[in-house]
Amino acid sequence: MSRPTLQAMLSEGRSGVLLFGITPPRENTSSERAREIASVTLERLSRLDLDGLILYDITDESDRNAADRPFPYLPTLDPASFHDEHLGDWDRPVVIYRCVGKYDEDELRKWLADTDPGRVLSVFVGASTGDKPVRTDLRRAQQLRSEIRPDLPLGAVVISERHTRSGDEHLRMLAKQERGCSFFISQVIYDVGDTKNLISDYFYACAERSLPPRPVIFTLSLCGSPKTLEFLKWLGVDVPRWLQNTLRHSPDPLADSYRECLSMARDLQDFCTRLGMPYGFHVESVSIRKAEIEGATRLAAELGTLLRG
Amino acid sequence: MSRPTLQAMLSEGRSGVLLFGITPPRENTSSERAREIASVTLERLSRLDLDGLILYDITDESDRNAADRPFPYLPTLDPASFHDEHLGDWDRPVVIYRCVGKYDEDELRKWLADTDPGRVLSVFVGASTGDKPVRTDLRRAQQLRSEIRPDLPLGAVVISERHTRSGDEHLRMLAKQERGCSFFISQVIYDVGDTKNLISDYFYACAERSLPPRPVIFTLSLCGSPKTLEFLKWLGVDVPRWLQNTLRHSPDPLADSYRECLSMARDLQDFCTRLGMPYGFHVESVSIRKAEIEGATRLAAELGTLLRG
Repeated sequence: MSRPTLQAMLSEGRSGVLLFGITPPRENTSSERAREIASVTLERLSRLDLDGLILYDITDESDRNAADRPFPYLPTLDPASFHDEHLGDWDRPVVIYRCVGKYDEDELRKWLADTDPGRVLSVFVGASTGDKPVRTDLRRAQQLRSEIRPDLPLGAVVISERHTRSGDEHLRMLAKQERGCSFFISQVIYDVGDTKNLISDYFYACAERSLPPRPVIFTLSLCGSPKTLEFLKWLGVDVPRWLQNTLRHSPDPLADSYRECLSMARDLQDFCTRLGMPYGFHVESVSIRKAEIEGATRLAAELGTLLRG
Repeated sequence: MSRPTLQAMLSEGRSGVLLFGITPPRENTSSERAREIASVTLERLSRLDLDGLILYDITDESDRNAADRPFPYLPTLDPASFHDEHLGDWDRPVVIYRCVGKYDEDELRKWLADTDPGRVLSVFVGASTGDKPVRTDLRRAQQLRSEIRPDLPLGAVVISERHTRSGDEHLRMLAKQERGCSFFISQVIYDVGDTKNLISDYFYACAERSLPPRPVIFTLSLCGSPKTLEFLKWLGVDVPRWLQNTLRHSPDPLADSYRECLSMARDLQDFCTRLGMPYGFHVESVSIRKAEIEGATRLAAELGTLLRG
């Protein structure tokens, strides 16, 4: 018996979704090379029983942080174009991220109108800082989708670090839900306690309002080197001190982060199951090193086993 | 083959110590009633394979917190007198807490001189706030012990909440170690991440100085009711939001806190084992309700199995 589609699982608020996130090749990649990259990626991912792929939309977030970006920012191909032109062999849904501030309303309108909700879901991402100039802001983009393409399943990003600092991320989730979001995808998680705080507050806020909680997909990412650790921190991921110490002193940080990611996944699974909170997992590699990408593939396979027994 | 004594395990820096903490009866308890209480307690604890008992020294800590104390402060019998007079049937060591600020130097000198290091260990506790008037401060008490009774194994309290706020609890541990402390006992733990941060920082600070880390005994305590939760918070224990939510919404908080305490113990055991950090467990009941005390006894039995597998 095959599983329901990603769209069905999310709209019915079911647990068990497994996604893998990839970043399209650099903007200046030749069409031939992009095809090769797509083919190698799909070959690698074909062994995994994924419900869908996430395609990132990268934007320059140097305003996020005065510190130097540990890996350079390089513009990448548009995720929707990469999907259309090179991922024809991928027969499952894709979740296309949209950093909406990069686009004019007309561009967003056109993309929304042309998109096939049978194959595509989207996550709209707002500006990385409040004072960044944007062409379209997050609310407006959410409105456009409600007008033009209400049948396009729309997700939103959740950030437990924001909840730790301001304590209202669960209310932002409810507001996004009201504006049409039917699922959430977390940023990379390295502090499982902070994440449980957010999920718990969100769950009980939904219960108070007699709203069914929407699925939250937890993003896990390995950290195979001190440089990746610096990058995670630059991205705003809170890595607990003990885990930073462990990774810095480790002869094999990739193995250590693998073990800790799996342990966080088990913890979150137990927690959500007990609570009755729908959840899923998403694996991405923030690094482009081969060992880290291979580790991410293994991690996704193991999370699939965790989810589907 | 019997285990080494508590004194040997601690002085050799071994893992595996299991302690149970009790508070002596109220000060106005008759001798007969104190004997009964001691007998019931020892009967209950005889089923556990404990390495020792902790006897608390209670002091009025109303200066700790402007908020009302959820359970009233009641002076209790002196732990050393209770031991001498009523715990003759207890054939294992006891760890006698001393809130040193309550005593004159002469009282401490006399107690130190009269104490049998074959049966007794001690933990000196400083004032709960910096501006509380004390008869003897913690450093002076530690000096007295070095002068009068250097063979009395001395421990100190560690507080991960303090590390979270000021980041230097691991340095305080090193300073206490220099002043003769050979083991540490934590305050009640409900935030396992904060505790791992402290242990990690302490472990690597020892490694940098080529000092062997001293054993840390982790204190776990059940929380069977909203009132106990308030008391834990009053005592300065950081209970993560998700766990507060869980306990407040639970039809059976005792069972939930039991499961979470056990899960924290497993997490700390894995963490310390991997690190090479010596550790043990200590169970206390901050509540005097029968169900919570019985739960604490079961928890100690299960931690014994965890430690001795």
